[in-house]
Amino acid sequence: MPVTRASLSRRVVAEGVGTGLLLAAVVGSGIMGERLAGGNAAIALLANTLATGAALSALILTFGPISGAHFNPAVSLVDAWQGGIAWREVPGYAAAQLAGAFAGVAAAHLMFGEPLFAFSTHARSGGAQAFSELVASFGLVSVILGCARRNPDPTPIAVGAYIAAAYWFTASTSFANPAVTLARAVTNTFSGIRPDDVPAFLAAQLAGAVLATALFRWIDGGEPGRQLRSATARDAI
Amino acid sequence: MPVTRASLSRRVVAEGVGTGLLLAAVVGSGIMGERLAGGNAAIALLANTLATGAALSALILTFGPISGAHFNPAVSLVDAWQGGIAWREVPGYAAAQLAGAFAGVAAAHLMFGEPLFAFSTHARSGGAQAFSELVASFGLVSVILGCARRNPDPTPIAVGAYIAAAYWFTASTSFANPAVTLARAVTNTFSGIRPDDVPAFLAAQLAGAVLATALFRWIDGGEPGRQLRSATARDAI
Amino acid sequence: MPVTRASLSRRVVAEGVGTGLLLAAVVGSGIMGERLAGGNAAIALLANTLATGAALSALILTFGPISGAHFNPAVSLVDAWQGGIAWREVPGYAAAQLAGAFAGVAAAHLMFGEPLFAFSTHARSGGAQAFSELVASFGLVSVILGCARRNPDPTPIAVGAYIAAAYWFTASTSFANPAVTLARAVTNTFSGIRPDDVPAFLAAQLAGAVLATALFRWIDGGEPGRQLRSATARDAI
Amino acid sequence: MPVTRASLSRRVVAEGVGTGLLLAAVVGSGIMGERLAGGNAAIALLANTLATGAALSALILTFGPISGAHFNPAVSLVDAWQGGIAWREVPGYAAAQLAGAFAGVAAAHLMFGEPLFAFSTHARSGGAQAFSELVASFGLVSVILGCARRNPDPTPIAVGAYIAAAYWFTASTSFANPAVTLARAVTNTFSGIRPDDVPAFLAAQLAGAVLATALFRWIDGGEPGRQLRSATARDAI
Repeated sequence: MPVTRASLSRRVVAEGVGTGLLLAAVVGSGIMGERLAGGNAAIALLANTLATGAALSALILTFGPISGAHFNPAVSLVDAWQGGIAWREVPGYAAAQLAGAFAGVAAAHLMFGEPLFAFSTHARSGGAQAFSELVASFGLVSVILGCARRNPDPTPIAVGAYIAAAYWFTASTSFANPAVTLARAVTNTFSGIRPDDVPAFLAAQLAGAVLATALFRWIDGGEPGRQLRSATARDAI
Repeated sequence: MPVTRASLSRRVVAEGVGTGLLLAAVVGSGIMGERLAGGNAAIALLANTLATGAALSALILTFGPISGAHFNPAVSLVDAWQGGIAWREVPGYAAAQLAGAFAGVAAAHLMFGEPLFAFSTHARSGGAQAFSELVASFGLVSVILGCARRNPDPTPIAVGAYIAAAYWFTASTSFANPAVTLARAVTNTFSGIRPDDVPAFLAAQLAGAVLATALFRWIDGGEPGRQLRSATARDAI
Repeated sequence: MPVTRASLSRRVVAEGVGTGLLLAAVVGSGIMGERLAGGNAAIALLANTLATGAALSALILTFGPISGAHFNPAVSLVDAWQGGIAWREVPGYAAAQLAGAFAGVAAAHLMFGEPLFAFSTHARSGGAQAFSELVASFGLVSVILGCARRNPDPTPIAVGAYIAAAYWFTASTSFANPAVTLARAVTNTFSGIRPDDVPAFLAAQLAGAVLATALFRWIDGGEPGRQLRSATARDAI
Repeated sequence: MPVTRASLSRRVVAEGVGTGLLLAAVVGSGIMGERLAGGNAAIALLANTLATGAALSALILTFGPISGAHFNPAVSLVDAWQGGIAWREVPGYAAAQLAGAFAGVAAAHLMFGEPLFAFSTHARSGGAQAFSELVASFGLVSVILGCARRNPDPTPIAVGAYIAAAYWFTASTSFANPAVTLARAVTNTFSGIRPDDVPAFLAAQLAGAVLATALFRWIDGGEPGRQLRSATARDAI
């Protein structure tokens, strides 16, 4: 996850471009899936799942060695907490992720002839939805922390596979990412979320990330920083 | 498969959390698949298969280096038989797997607004079903033993791929895991199994595991313990 | 592909068990797919494809280090031609593959409540079908020879992915394997082939294998044996 | 990506055979998908996506160590720009890719009983389609350049996964390849493109490739050639 060879400006651009392509994949494949599926929501979601999981794995393989390929402010916070990127780098990471996410939504809309931005009317409210996001985010951060320290090479595959699974096993279809959630509020298509429902998603995502980080700090016996740096050194060879 | 760096308490928690997420994936994606598939059971099972196989691979990559990522009492027994974990550690592993499995079912029910637990009415009885579980478990343990000693890096992918395939090529949809079977008895949704049908599943799963272990002990020429320990040492580097 | 550590009897048993599980996967998932798909042949074939490709990759990872995981008499012939297994070992390999293939079909039938064996009435005749098998087999042997010498680690993934693709891009759904073809003649289900159509399939498969082998011998500049042996030595470390 | 051990003639043949099999996969699976899907375009495109992504990964694993497995004139141009293959080798690569692509279309037509070549009547025109190709090609070249220098081993998986995703998240279904585009103009089946719409696709693909290359030259700090050669040297070990 944490790689420190590239300058901050280069890493921030990598985060922005990667998050942009990720959102284009999420939103674009949702539109295509719904248009072609003839009303069968499972087929539309299968297409959306396949595209999201495959794009996510490919983009982490592409940008991971440059910036860590977080594409997710919650992951950047966890990484800073674990001694990966510096705390002062988090705002740059998060800003780039947000800017990239909104640009990716706009790109998807341009490709499919939709208005550049439009608030979603897709309701995703209630406790079961929030609990779903807590589970989704807990699982995502667990996969990242579990793999990144001991199994770094297959991390991109593990993350893509996990998100593909979580699209189906959480009732919220696993946003698990504050930048993705905010950007999906401005697409009134298959993958959108009503702006009113965003705050509960963000809170649940952060809670899930904190729980997973606490679990893995305990499993790692209280010395995550050192282990993480050695993993970094290994990446940098 | 066997990794001995973490303390037993940490490994047992890893088994519980991992098995919990696995059951959430199995049961949750079954509910989502059935709700969205418009009555087409093949589409629902495709979604259930995709989510289960992808989650299983991701979770083994995540927890494998900590606890071995058995998530399955039959696999823990096989591992003890092969000289991996100690026999006295098996009860702790199995208890954590069972507790995690039931918690995962409850989590899926909470996410999808189902009652916390409900006995399944899904009949899965008869000799063909039991034979299916024997085949499913024989294949699963063969994949684990064949890969773990000679091909450890891709084991998580092989196991996830095998289970995804076995969802379709066995008539029982390949439970192949006593903890999974018991926990699926308390979900009255797509992936459930009637409690009356559980004992035959458990017996067939254990028989399949024993057959596969015997086969690989013969293939390995009677010195599995030594080879297994060297694989462990390699993992621990 | 070629590994020579295990005794011939152990390798032959590995070929038989692996081919048996492969045929159970091919035939069993075809039955399950057709039963659940509600008459949509594309959905049935998607399930059959997913199960076959995933099972094939998992089984090659499992048995490859023991016997080479040919599961295919044409591949065993190519391997002997390239200096892998000895020519005198080919009959044992082929006999085990055939016995395993028929046992796997019987196992699938037992799991799904079908008669143990039944001749197929599924017509697959004509020049386009035979040409399809030539293309399928040419591609399969190309993938094996291209990967095995220069890229051995991902060979199991490449072979499974190739066969999954070829199920869809050849008009015959890519049998590409004489043992598979003969065994599929005795299942009167989704994946069957009428016995009368078998000989043309076998001839085309062998022709495709010869063409691919000739191509790669030329690409390798006429010294395949040496290169293959060095790849073997690398596997054997 | 760039491998220089094989003679140019051998590399050019590898590019031709690989591109031929790729086009057979794209066109053949489109025909099969449409024939079996019972009018559901999403199911047909899912089959087309699965076959294309899986075949592409398998073929890059097969031919990558021989020729680099570009299968794409835009990629060969980028590779020459980055100091991979020599500029004087580009025409040979492109000619082989084009010849292979048309032969692959013909092979698919023979397998499925279609006329050898037929101009497509499938309209894919307008700014949204061209913008889609720009995005598709920008993403493809980003994945190739991002992975090839720092993450060469999983490049084949990343490229196949990216293209599978882009089939769904771009409105044009991501041709992203001039040779593929020209060859798909002569199939009047699912995957075809009207000859009149080809020029805008080619221009957008080249523009996307240039943008991605410029981005990665900046990220790499202006010394791509040196880094690329070191990656090459690593491949050649």
